[in-house]
Amino acid sequence: MTKMKWAVTAATLGALLLAGNAIAADKKVVAVSIPAADHGWTSGIVYHAQAAAKEINAAFPNVEVVVKTSPSAAAQVSALEDLSAGRKLDALVILPHTSEELTMPVKAVKEGGTFITVVDRGLNDPAIQDLYLAGDNIAVGKNTAKFLVDKLGGKGNLVVLRGIPTVIDDERIQGFKDGIAGSDLKILDIQYANWNSDDAFKLMQDYLAKYPQIDAVWANDDDMLLGVLEAIKQSSRTEIKYALGGNGMKEIIKKVIDGDAMTPVETPYPPSMIKTAIYMTVANLIGQAPIRGVVKLDAPLITKDNAAEYYFPDSPF
Amino acid sequence: MTKMKWAVTAATLGALLLAGNAIAADKKVVAVSIPAADHGWTSGIVYHAQAAAKEINAAFPNVEVVVKTSPSAAAQVSALEDLSAGRKLDALVILPHTSEELTMPVKAVKEGGTFITVVDRGLNDPAIQDLYLAGDNIAVGKNTAKFLVDKLGGKGNLVVLRGIPTVIDDERIQGFKDGIAGSDLKILDIQYANWNSDDAFKLMQDYLAKYPQIDAVWANDDDMLLGVLEAIKQSSRTEIKYALGGNGMKEIIKKVIDGDAMTPVETPYPPSMIKTAIYMTVANLIGQAPIRGVVKLDAPLITKDNAAEYYFPDSPF
Repeated sequence: MTKMKWAVTAATLGALLLAGNAIAADKKVVAVSIPAADHGWTSGIVYHAQAAAKEINAAFPNVEVVVKTSPSAAAQVSALEDLSAGRKLDALVILPHTSEELTMPVKAVKEGGTFITVVDRGLNDPAIQDLYLAGDNIAVGKNTAKFLVDKLGGKGNLVVLRGIPTVIDDERIQGFKDGIAGSDLKILDIQYANWNSDDAFKLMQDYLAKYPQIDAVWANDDDMLLGVLEAIKQSSRTEIKYALGGNGMKEIIKKVIDGDAMTPVETPYPPSMIKTAIYMTVANLIGQAPIRGVVKLDAPLITKDNAAEYYFPDSPF
Repeated sequence: MTKMKWAVTAATLGALLLAGNAIAADKKVVAVSIPAADHGWTSGIVYHAQAAAKEINAAFPNVEVVVKTSPSAAAQVSALEDLSAGRKLDALVILPHTSEELTMPVKAVKEGGTFITVVDRGLNDPAIQDLYLAGDNIAVGKNTAKFLVDKLGGKGNLVVLRGIPTVIDDERIQGFKDGIAGSDLKILDIQYANWNSDDAFKLMQDYLAKYPQIDAVWANDDDMLLGVLEAIKQSSRTEIKYALGGNGMKEIIKKVIDGDAMTPVETPYPPSMIKTAIYMTVANLIGQAPIRGVVKLDAPLITKDNAAEYYFPDSPF
């Protein structure tokens, strides 16, 4: 066995030596343009983009993945100019700061012959993208709702926290409402808390003051869930059976792994999706694997059984 | 520049040497179970699965992709038993011979803790799959139809060849009918030719005998298109402007690259999709990239501009 492994190593070395002279000319460049780490989820995006670059650059000597973070839409527009100046980008993987400001700059890059992979936030003109990859916000809400219907035996009082008025928030809430439809789960109240822990803490305190019997809380997002859990902890309330979030924050996944009673499940809208997009793009460049189209990742219920797959202890998120 | 490349090579060698002892224990096994090459499209599946295995095994020393072809559903059931006997499969990528016979055997593999990626032909119970990846047969028909509506100025006489009565065939035809809806393109005749060149040759001869004015032919599949083209060639007919197929056979892609007047475009239902599925599965195993869900690859119109991306001169298909 050891002998075979060394034979493989030697063969790999041989291939590297033979390939040596061809590498520079044949090297395919994949630029990854993403927002800087301005909150938990985008810090996860930065972490996973850099991890993908490291893994792929080590694995494929003829691919160079270059990651560039930008603190604003204007900076991202400049970054695109810098990235494509003086060299042909074979592919661009981009999570745009805003659809409005990035649509035309990305179109210009595409017109230079670059394969365009758009992640999470779409451009205003979908014809520009070759691959679009995002999570499924409807499933985030629906799968959480189905868990609660099941665990609460189809009846009980809920309070729900919304994020910021956006398509993302609308879809999550729609999925949740669809998921409890037909049951006797009742939403006592539903208000916005801006995907912010402090705002969620205050809103949850209001809910606790107003409603004497709350069976479960759905926070729609893990940053808000942290505020909710703190408010519950500071109260003397014991009737609340579940407080759930969504997104895949590592602190919440850890609770699932540890078998936490109040937060035993999670639904992902994982920043690691940037990694999926980068790997798919590289598969197309390296092996001509067909990837054109629209990919909507599922948001399966994360339980103790599968949580390790979604847990990144070294990630900031 | 040369010096830098050698430094990288040396570093890679170092990593391989250091990793040497850990490889065997940490090696993740991805089994790929596919039909044997019983016709053009499946011969493409075999070619691309083996190419993916070669590329990935060379790139990632801690992954072993094992490809097993099976000439029948019964043989594929046995192959699954052999592949999973005596070792844990981290992932299984499978294109089932039949949904009926493979559903329970794949379920058994999943229950052993294996990640299941299903390609093209679904299992009877979708809950078994972690990732399902297929092409878009509706788009195959629709994008072809839109091309004809555009090029024929919205009017003309068409003849269409169907394959074998299946969901795949129904979807392609439905997409085509949707695509010509609202135009004055008229389908003079539409009959089955079993996705077979000889049958298509005979059917096209019938069409030619029956209809004095045919503006375009849609063969629904490239094997049938070959028969259609031969029948047209043997006739003295000159009014037929376009004869189009679908699937991505290399002979047809080559025509597109060469600017063939009668077959200037193609739509893919490419066997290389097995490669996409394998790369995605490896991204999950190597980098925990989230890939659970349903991926339907687009079937964009292949034109002279993008044909190289879909052309595999060394593939049998």
